[in-house]
Amino acid sequence: MLGRINIAAAAKIRPARMGSLGARMVSQLAEPREPQVVTSEIPGPASASALERLGKMQDTRAAVFVADYAKSVGNFIVDADGNQLLDLYCQIASIPVGYNNEKILQAARSSQMATALANRPALGVFPSTDWAQQLEQSLMRVKPSGLDMVFTAAHGSDANEVAFKAAFMHYMRVRRGNSAFSAAELSSVMDNRPPGSPELAILSFSSGFHGRTFGALSATRSKALHKMDIPAFPWPRAPFPQLRYPLDKYAEDNAQEEQRCLQETERILRTNAVPVAAVIVEPVQSEGGDRHASSEFFRGLRRITKEMGVLMIVDEVQTGCAATGTFWAHEQWGLQSPPDMVTFSKKMQAAGFYHSFDMVPDQPYRNFNTWMGDPARALLAQAIVAEVIDRDLSTQVRVTGDYLMSHLKPLAVRYHRVVSNVRGCGTFLAFDCPSTEMRTEFLHLMRLEGVNMGGSGDVTVRFRPMLTLNKSLVNVFLTRFESVLNKMYHKHWPQ
Amino acid sequence: MLGRINIAAAAKIRPARMGSLGARMVSQLAEPREPQVVTSEIPGPASASALERLGKMQDTRAAVFVADYAKSVGNFIVDADGNQLLDLYCQIASIPVGYNNEKILQAARSSQMATALANRPALGVFPSTDWAQQLEQSLMRVKPSGLDMVFTAAHGSDANEVAFKAAFMHYMRVRRGNSAFSAAELSSVMDNRPPGSPELAILSFSSGFHGRTFGALSATRSKALHKMDIPAFPWPRAPFPQLRYPLDKYAEDNAQEEQRCLQETERILRTNAVPVAAVIVEPVQSEGGDRHASSEFFRGLRRITKEMGVLMIVDEVQTGCAATGTFWAHEQWGLQSPPDMVTFSKKMQAAGFYHSFDMVPDQPYRNFNTWMGDPARALLAQAIVAEVIDRDLSTQVRVTGDYLMSHLKPLAVRYHRVVSNVRGCGTFLAFDCPSTEMRTEFLHLMRLEGVNMGGSGDVTVRFRPMLTLNKSLVNVFLTRFESVLNKMYHKHWPQ
Repeated sequence: MLGRINIAAAAKIRPARMGSLGARMVSQLAEPREPQVVTSEIPGPASASALERLGKMQDTRAAVFVADYAKSVGNFIVDADGNQLLDLYCQIASIPVGYNNEKILQAARSSQMATALANRPALGVFPSTDWAQQLEQSLMRVKPSGLDMVFTAAHGSDANEVAFKAAFMHYMRVRRGNSAFSAAELSSVMDNRPPGSPELAILSFSSGFHGRTFGALSATRSKALHKMDIPAFPWPRAPFPQLRYPLDKYAEDNAQEEQRCLQETERILRTNAVPVAAVIVEPVQSEGGDRHASSEFFRGLRRITKEMGVLMIVDEVQTGCAATGTFWAHEQWGLQSPPDMVTFSKKMQAAGFYHSFDMVPDQPYRNFNTWMGDPARALLAQAIVAEVIDRDLSTQVRVTGDYLMSHLKPLAVRYHRVVSNVRGCGTFLAFDCPSTEMRTEFLHLMRLEGVNMGGSGDVTVRFRPMLTLNKSLVNVFLTRFESVLNKMYHKHWPQ
Repeated sequence: MLGRINIAAAAKIRPARMGSLGARMVSQLAEPREPQVVTSEIPGPASASALERLGKMQDTRAAVFVADYAKSVGNFIVDADGNQLLDLYCQIASIPVGYNNEKILQAARSSQMATALANRPALGVFPSTDWAQQLEQSLMRVKPSGLDMVFTAAHGSDANEVAFKAAFMHYMRVRRGNSAFSAAELSSVMDNRPPGSPELAILSFSSGFHGRTFGALSATRSKALHKMDIPAFPWPRAPFPQLRYPLDKYAEDNAQEEQRCLQETERILRTNAVPVAAVIVEPVQSEGGDRHASSEFFRGLRRITKEMGVLMIVDEVQTGCAATGTFWAHEQWGLQSPPDMVTFSKKMQAAGFYHSFDMVPDQPYRNFNTWMGDPARALLAQAIVAEVIDRDLSTQVRVTGDYLMSHLKPLAVRYHRVVSNVRGCGTFLAFDCPSTEMRTEFLHLMRLEGVNMGGSGDVTVRFRPMLTLNKSLVNVFLTRFESVLNKMYHKHWPQ
């Protein structure tokens, strides 16, 4: 029921149109029960031809297939060739509650949306009369405990960069006290030299991913290909725990590993040549290969940063919006005091960072840009947040995730040559393949079986379904999953 | 006729609805002829109260007033108190063809828009079936001569940063030849050290503005407040010509000044400690104070960069989309060969950079991110580009700009104690005040007379009207302008 487009709700909205036309409209919106693959290869011929046309204008080498979004419904994506795939990748983890979700479509078709699109404001100087209400009904409904303000931005990289800027301004405000900018600062800053452009750092963790713009990329440590040839700030990285699975078997080793990483983090914060203004960390390292740490680790990080007066930024760009079973993943840590900033994007369909009043710079126009966010995106976030709350999707994610996990674990034993290190929380799950090549083969075969999945890191397969995934769709997945694993076993390890 | 909402066109679209309801709808959309100011102060009490509510969630210290966008029409913005102002600032130069433009509203209400908003794709991996066509009908219709590809982004800073990344990858590809990444590159890049994270630079000009994210901000040289406390890359800046006005009087001095700046640029490119991969320049330095240079200067810059194998990026974020009387300002330079990249945002309501095939990185996923642009924004750009072409707004901008300039020049003689250095092209005009304080007073008095304007640099007033400004609205402005100047004269220089 929860996993499909809400037909009852649609009927309630337009009772006058529920004749033959209305019935047809609603039936077009009904979510399929099964994938349907109609081409022998994906991308099929229609995708290939669309990519050839697009390739004259844009680089298409990363394209997997071309999608027909008008025909995609709920958990299913339809491609240019008419293949209908169960989508467990969801535009790199950024579709929250299904393709063509009725509530989001309502927001998209509202007169408020038309006004927001046709009159995009410079929110910092000419905010709209309804902007406060829009924030209250969207982003502020789910503000993390202890963080009452929100700085709106354009996407995840942008969100992290404005958080970094807030951190650097905060650091210098504390150091400068109530003094004005010095003559030396004013004369050096236009030449990008200290003291005006200070030598300060953000500490991030090995395998962390925080985006692709220059500041965000300097904190990103996922893959060489993401960073190669791009100048970067000389910012330090600390080791992130490399846990061993299953967790209960390696509990002691893992606790030691986390202690080692915390000690090394503290050592860097104390000794780094350049002062560290903030630490940024993901609740689950996602692009870097679905690497987890325990709540104890994150509480330790909060303790260390508090003790040393270093800000803690939690990057919830991928984990936020209920994907791990709570609206924000860091809610599960039981932190003694809140993070200083929490960044978000992706499933929220709006981006930015939450913060307390203390993070506001001492003067206006300092953390600033033309648009400062986007009311159109806040309207979408409002519909998304309402869906998550009204349908209690956090609970659904936990229930569905537990069900999926309970099946993945025995399958990982049975098909251990392909599937290992099953891990995760909520439906934010993952496992490892023995090699990058075998992962590529797995993902390709899964698409041909009707399931679209993605990888992370070098050998990991990640589950990034919508919050609307349910047990019956998990069963659909499991059938296809076993079929693919059997094919791979027959090919690589014939009896 | 062109400066107002097109009533004839609206009537054509829905002839059946032109009864009493239709007439009322259209009359609601009709553009006012005059400003109307109903409060004794701006921001008025309703704006102040809205800002107080918003101030609990966001920093509002830069807010000028709170706007009611649903009530704003054409060239007029309406605020929360019902003040109706002729808008010559236009959301920091980013509203192209009027508030609630009928064609843009049609795009905003289209089913394609609803699909684009409800299903935001990861365009790099799952482009939509209509993405190629959307690009062809929007951004590609106005591609600068010689640049056949477009990389889509989120905003102006983002556009410049992806252009910088393309420049650095291009530089290293040329230097590396066909070799693979070296072991030293692969091992150093994850620590942000050379050779993997190379020491390379972007050269920008004094007073240039290219955005606020870390890479863009390292090229920005507008104001100390924009850059203070934020770490920056050690990139060089060259002097930008400081022309003297009127241009015909100082022709020889100005030519010498431009030669000096070109020679200094060439010297830096030859001797800079770190190799320069690209030069970025605005056709008119906008945030930095509306600083202009001649076509000869830009042709010289193209010649030098070509000779030295340095890429040339033209930042048309503020000048693009017909504001200077041609679709791209750099069309007026008569360049011997096209720029290597042209960045855009603001009035286009979509962002990115144009480039040739040669700028495509050697591997996929290198210049990459989750969303890679936004089909919703391309649909808006499509409507905007169609308006500019169908209504020949470039010509209108030239005609209106010439008319405005012909009146500004004698007024600058008459009110020389407040207005000097009148300059610009198209309606992209500006003048200087004698001090920052007097500019603040001028802008404030103009709002109380019903005209919303903005500043740039320390003492400059900039005109950033929509492309739909016309002579009759210029007359409205001129009346208010003289009234304010008379008030200032009476106050500061009483007879």
